[in-house]
Amino acid sequence: MPAVDLRAARAALRARTPLVHCLTNTVVQTITANALLAAGAAPAMVDAPEEAGDFAAVASAVLVNVGTVHARTAEAMRLAARSAGAAGTPWVLDPVAVGGLVYRTELATELVGLRPTVVRGNASEILALAGAGSGGRGVDSTDSTENAAKAAAELATRTGGVVAVSGEVDLVTDGRRTIRIGGGSALLTRTTGAGCALGALVAAYVAATEDPLVGTVAAHAHVAVAAERAARLAHGPGTFAPAWLDALDAVDGEALAAADVT
Amino acid sequence: MPAVDLRAARAALRARTPLVHCLTNTVVQTITANALLAAGAAPAMVDAPEEAGDFAAVASAVLVNVGTVHARTAEAMRLAARSAGAAGTPWVLDPVAVGGLVYRTELATELVGLRPTVVRGNASEILALAGAGSGGRGVDSTDSTENAAKAAAELATRTGGVVAVSGEVDLVTDGRRTIRIGGGSALLTRTTGAGCALGALVAAYVAATEDPLVGTVAAHAHVAVAAERAARLAHGPGTFAPAWLDALDAVDGEALAAADVT
Amino acid sequence: MPAVDLRAARAALRARTPLVHCLTNTVVQTITANALLAAGAAPAMVDAPEEAGDFAAVASAVLVNVGTVHARTAEAMRLAARSAGAAGTPWVLDPVAVGGLVYRTELATELVGLRPTVVRGNASEILALAGAGSGGRGVDSTDSTENAAKAAAELATRTGGVVAVSGEVDLVTDGRRTIRIGGGSALLTRTTGAGCALGALVAAYVAATEDPLVGTVAAHAHVAVAAERAARLAHGPGTFAPAWLDALDAVDGEALAAADVT
Repeated sequence: MPAVDLRAARAALRARTPLVHCLTNTVVQTITANALLAAGAAPAMVDAPEEAGDFAAVASAVLVNVGTVHARTAEAMRLAARSAGAAGTPWVLDPVAVGGLVYRTELATELVGLRPTVVRGNASEILALAGAGSGGRGVDSTDSTENAAKAAAELATRTGGVVAVSGEVDLVTDGRRTIRIGGGSALLTRTTGAGCALGALVAAYVAATEDPLVGTVAAHAHVAVAAERAARLAHGPGTFAPAWLDALDAVDGEALAAADVT
Repeated sequence: MPAVDLRAARAALRARTPLVHCLTNTVVQTITANALLAAGAAPAMVDAPEEAGDFAAVASAVLVNVGTVHARTAEAMRLAARSAGAAGTPWVLDPVAVGGLVYRTELATELVGLRPTVVRGNASEILALAGAGSGGRGVDSTDSTENAAKAAAELATRTGGVVAVSGEVDLVTDGRRTIRIGGGSALLTRTTGAGCALGALVAAYVAATEDPLVGTVAAHAHVAVAAERAARLAHGPGTFAPAWLDALDAVDGEALAAADVT
Repeated sequence: MPAVDLRAARAALRARTPLVHCLTNTVVQTITANALLAAGAAPAMVDAPEEAGDFAAVASAVLVNVGTVHARTAEAMRLAARSAGAAGTPWVLDPVAVGGLVYRTELATELVGLRPTVVRGNASEILALAGAGSGGRGVDSTDSTENAAKAAAELATRTGGVVAVSGEVDLVTDGRRTIRIGGGSALLTRTTGAGCALGALVAAYVAATEDPLVGTVAAHAHVAVAAERAARLAHGPGTFAPAWLDALDAVDGEALAAADVT
């Protein structure tokens, strides 16, 4: 396994309080912002074309999530991604439901050409984006993480960045190094926006760490460890969400270092 | 009372995990998605005109809620409703605040002409849509459910579908059969989106059952029974919402069969 | 200190159930609506240009929050503000992130010219709006409340209304009278939308009371006292939010009268 110092990553996130500019879907904006705040980052959601480019240039990192994209927000995403690229600011692409819908698949393909620092999706989305799959249905994945391992590595090589495949076991690769993160809780899949919030946390961690692979792994481990804690306290999917936010706050470097990362 | 097998409806929902395509207002997207997930359905929110028609054709059911509608989303709603109709996919219209505002009243009237499988609203909205009332103020109802019974039956006859009037006692009719659902909790009215989430659950249940009247009743009973459980655990309107989601998950066929349905 | 009867303000809010028309950012719509419901007001979110002007004319108060503004919602905000002004309906401007971004700064400056009843922001936003500061980064403030006291008073004199500066200690002024509200909890700053919901509660209280200064102070005191209660019950930022909503409901006139208001 490559050297991944999760303790240092947690400390770096807390020390730098990265400002994450989120262009994300309207279903998950609240939990995304709250997850960033809980973990120790700062959220800002600016998705007007008049502002998105300027704001991306001053943010610590940018998240582009196409979950409820339409013409105006697609334009804002293009401007933010270009601006982030020009400024050397890390940015994350979350290709929600790509593969099943033509409009967003074309947009995501265009955005991949702008070389996102990280692409984070489920197996169906990564396969579709790599040109190898049929897409899921909405946020569900109909493919398994390991089935997408090869496509993820190829996509990472193409972008020169990192690709993360979320599933029961998460897989993170930059084309040369591949790391798997286990643990977590099935309740994450029953909480709207948990996966989308993970994309925002990837952006925060990548802004706070030197190596995007390490930052991406740290975000996945943080979400998984917090989910395990929350699952022990929750009485169902409704009480899981606030408990998970509490746990995102409480998880420290020591807890993160004990995550199931191989 | 017509034969309504709520135990079978609950089992059917769990077995089929219907994918509900929600074109709904931005205030309630999160709780709507979480309520669907908690109950055992799958949400997807796609409201770009470029995608809404295609997605409606592959979804199990469609929800059209005009709460924060504007030109773009109105167009997406028209496309989704037409696509659902052409595919024989059940769809639900929630005419939020119709009657008080011209723009959405014209849109909802147009959508009624596309014959929604179910119309779900409060008494003021149903009266307005049936051409018989003055509308409420926002999501409040200034009329009582029983006052809307005749208008609901007439509207159901006109659409050939089901009309549900939410209130202290809910009323569900297809113009021939009328069923009332009691119980629930006043805390539902103090939780933003509980009524809108009910509309999405109606879509899910109608997708999972043969008879739209039965599916609509099952959704209302599910919400009411879960609200009663949550009200016993909650310390106020804030802790009610997560407890209600927990209860939507926990309510099984036996609990549903004990609902106040007459 | 000017005479501020918080007990009477709380009773007036409960008695009148003001309908607050919120044109606000999509990140915070849910918590804003739930905070209004918890406190005893009624929310409605209508942001289509086709409807916003008409609805503002019938609402008890209007909130204009530019957090995620874009061309369509900017137009709806202009129409709502003009309509509220013409109807003599109180309206609140929340200039989120003004100063740092040109588009919304121009819009907010234009809206200030329409003389909002109350402007509520953090120190950086108020300084920027008064033409005296550099703006914060998103919803963060990089300036202190007391640094903005002079600019707030000048801005209030210019609009003929009230200006509120939120911070560790809040400052409310109409240019002649200045009141400070202490207490609260740092967890408010870790809950997305707590500040934006405060803006909506200001609108509700101003609709329910005679003197906008008193209404604005009452809203700030209500939020602070509820936050103190919630902080004692919460296990972190996730469980704080529902506990805060519970407390917004539970806080009565007596509790409000004991707030740290000087």
